[in-house]
Amino acid sequence: MSELTTRAGALDAADELAGVRKQFVLDEVVYLDGNSLGALPANVPGHVEDVVRRQWGELRIRSWDESGWWTAPERIGDRIAPLVGAAPGQIVVGDSTSVNVFKALVAAVRLADSAGAAGSAGSVGSAGAVGSVGSAGVAGSVGSGRDEILVDATTFPTDGYIAESAARMTGRTLRPVTPAEVPGALSDRTAAVLLNHVDYRTGRLHDLPSLTAAVHAAGAVAVWDLCHSAGALPVGLDEHGVDLAVGCTYKYLNGGPGSPAYLYVRRELQDRFDSPLPGWNSHAEPFGMRPAFEPAAGALRGRVGTPDILSMLALEAALEVWDGVRIEAVRAKSLALTDFFLECVAAYVPEGRVESVTPVAHSERGSQVALRCDDAGDVMKRLIERGVVGDFRHPDVLRFGFTPLYVGFADVERAARVLGEVLR
Amino acid sequence: MSELTTRAGALDAADELAGVRKQFVLDEVVYLDGNSLGALPANVPGHVEDVVRRQWGELRIRSWDESGWWTAPERIGDRIAPLVGAAPGQIVVGDSTSVNVFKALVAAVRLADSAGAAGSAGSVGSAGAVGSVGSAGVAGSVGSGRDEILVDATTFPTDGYIAESAARMTGRTLRPVTPAEVPGALSDRTAAVLLNHVDYRTGRLHDLPSLTAAVHAAGAVAVWDLCHSAGALPVGLDEHGVDLAVGCTYKYLNGGPGSPAYLYVRRELQDRFDSPLPGWNSHAEPFGMRPAFEPAAGALRGRVGTPDILSMLALEAALEVWDGVRIEAVRAKSLALTDFFLECVAAYVPEGRVESVTPVAHSERGSQVALRCDDAGDVMKRLIERGVVGDFRHPDVLRFGFTPLYVGFADVERAARVLGEVLR
Repeated sequence: MSELTTRAGALDAADELAGVRKQFVLDEVVYLDGNSLGALPANVPGHVEDVVRRQWGELRIRSWDESGWWTAPERIGDRIAPLVGAAPGQIVVGDSTSVNVFKALVAAVRLADSAGAAGSAGSVGSAGAVGSVGSAGVAGSVGSGRDEILVDATTFPTDGYIAESAARMTGRTLRPVTPAEVPGALSDRTAAVLLNHVDYRTGRLHDLPSLTAAVHAAGAVAVWDLCHSAGALPVGLDEHGVDLAVGCTYKYLNGGPGSPAYLYVRRELQDRFDSPLPGWNSHAEPFGMRPAFEPAAGALRGRVGTPDILSMLALEAALEVWDGVRIEAVRAKSLALTDFFLECVAAYVPEGRVESVTPVAHSERGSQVALRCDDAGDVMKRLIERGVVGDFRHPDVLRFGFTPLYVGFADVERAARVLGEVLR
Repeated sequence: MSELTTRAGALDAADELAGVRKQFVLDEVVYLDGNSLGALPANVPGHVEDVVRRQWGELRIRSWDESGWWTAPERIGDRIAPLVGAAPGQIVVGDSTSVNVFKALVAAVRLADSAGAAGSAGSVGSAGAVGSVGSAGVAGSVGSGRDEILVDATTFPTDGYIAESAARMTGRTLRPVTPAEVPGALSDRTAAVLLNHVDYRTGRLHDLPSLTAAVHAAGAVAVWDLCHSAGALPVGLDEHGVDLAVGCTYKYLNGGPGSPAYLYVRRELQDRFDSPLPGWNSHAEPFGMRPAFEPAAGALRGRVGTPDILSMLALEAALEVWDGVRIEAVRAKSLALTDFFLECVAAYVPEGRVESVTPVAHSERGSQVALRCDDAGDVMKRLIERGVVGDFRHPDVLRFGFTPLYVGFADVERAARVLGEVLR
């Protein structure tokens, strides 16, 4: 037994989250792809069966009230809220991440306009900046003079595509910049900034507090994409004054394939949140069937159409694994896992065969390790054949995600060891 | 046994679709709310269990390929296609109806602009009208002079709210008109027209072929909402030259609560379909992770983000009940059911107590009957207590939907009889 194997055993024995693993359906595979699709929580199948057989099959239409289907988007939003540092009443679940990026970014531009119209540039989020909703954000009118949207140039592509559409439809110019370049690119022309908390490819954690502060200092609106951070590390949305945020639920939140995304709208901004997708679910009186739109109060105005109940209630059950779990403990284990993985890779993998593109500094690291490797596509296939599942990201990255709720240190040691064998 | 009871028995005995009912989970309730939420097909629970336990739980990330998750939106679209008279390759499933209305209506305006730019007003759908995508539809530019969107003023509210947003974001004026007023309202200022095939409240069937022809004669783009017709009657999208269409899948298609909606993009228009929601799933090379958006070929460019697999694959299983079912037989039975219901209501309900707002003429009737009734909310509660489930639509409508796949003539007679007892 190698020293690393011994260490892994000791680390697992001391792991305060080790007991959570039994709440997931796992097998002999080392699953390091939970940052793409989280593993199945063991309570989900039974819950989904109840939703299908009893709630849909027996109660049918009555379930919209009796089974709480109608209020699921905000109820599940409140369940996610503590994981991202949000007080209740600010998150709704529904639609894909892409659709939520569109809602958030268009609404952000309108918020910037309404703040500008109220003469309060520089204090979008302040109580004083109560602009009027309605005229702001009309196509072609850039009343605030804020004619630019900044977007993370290293973002997961869909955010950039949707940002391009949001810019086009609000008459703004989209400027892709790296997160490091954001402070220098901000000006009184900036309406909104869309950033990723953790880079999907490199695993780099961006500095949400300081970047949000810089965006606010320039009088712009900060929109964060939490897909690769929520459930893996503390986000602190309320604490850091983030304006709007979106995230998916099928990675570290284990909601299942394509489970609905969420939208965070900070409480002080909700009255001015002006959605480009004002569906009947965001109406103040959805069953009034009124021809004129009147937005609901609160985060509910981020809803759109009828929510996809099966996927949504699977997510709700999946979130039960978080009962009693502190996100700080998750973060501590995540860093210990990725540290240990890097150490094992250094020990097992021939020198020069891979190069980590994930930052060494804890303050700059998410919950994944990305290794650059010339033949990464082929290497990942061979890893998967040998029971170590990560994923390949074009053109040359081996990506390994570490979900602290179910990945242990022995898994980490084995993954690195198998990688070494494959690369030798 | 009354004459109507005897007739019901005879009609059920002669019903070629009677055998389909056993493919659904039903009980002693007369379920006339399938136009809100379709009943559970019996094969769905087992299929969903396989999706959750095996595809997600065991195969995990591999299922995107191995279980066909990635291609589900277009595969299931092709399964819906024959039910709405569409050849394969023109429908994708995903997102809510509201979100699809937004995609379709913004894209319609851009199509109208690009046709205008190409000097082909009046022939949006013709092979000659190959406008360029890209500049058309930019906020504030109304290059075509087509500065109006017409919307069905009697529409289900969400379509009107979303149309208002689409108009605002493309710099157009929204003109709500009744479907009957559309021919008179069309002009060379009309960019696009959004209409409902069947009115959600009255059950009135609008004349899709002639209205589509009128829209085209004016050089505008026709967008149809099929929520209340798909699965209940032949639609003939290809035959009648409809440009774009959307519909939900949880009513007559029985896909389950909030199952994803679909978008039809006529083949000749696909190269010019310019989505306001260009997510990574609609990219020509989604895993290329390229910073620049390049739309996929075909209907796939109607996709947006990661599809909600649980809800989507429940729908796919639900669509199996259509194997061997002719939509013409469904339509014939639907009309017979609603005719018989109106006859039974006339026989059982005290004179003057209710008034049908659903057209008598077959050519103007969908698959529901709406009865105006002063105390409709209270009456519907009492009907439901007595095992007859319809729904109440504000302010004074009792709405009864007739799903020919599982509603029989004895159900119809019983529903009318109980209604008579409640109202006496």
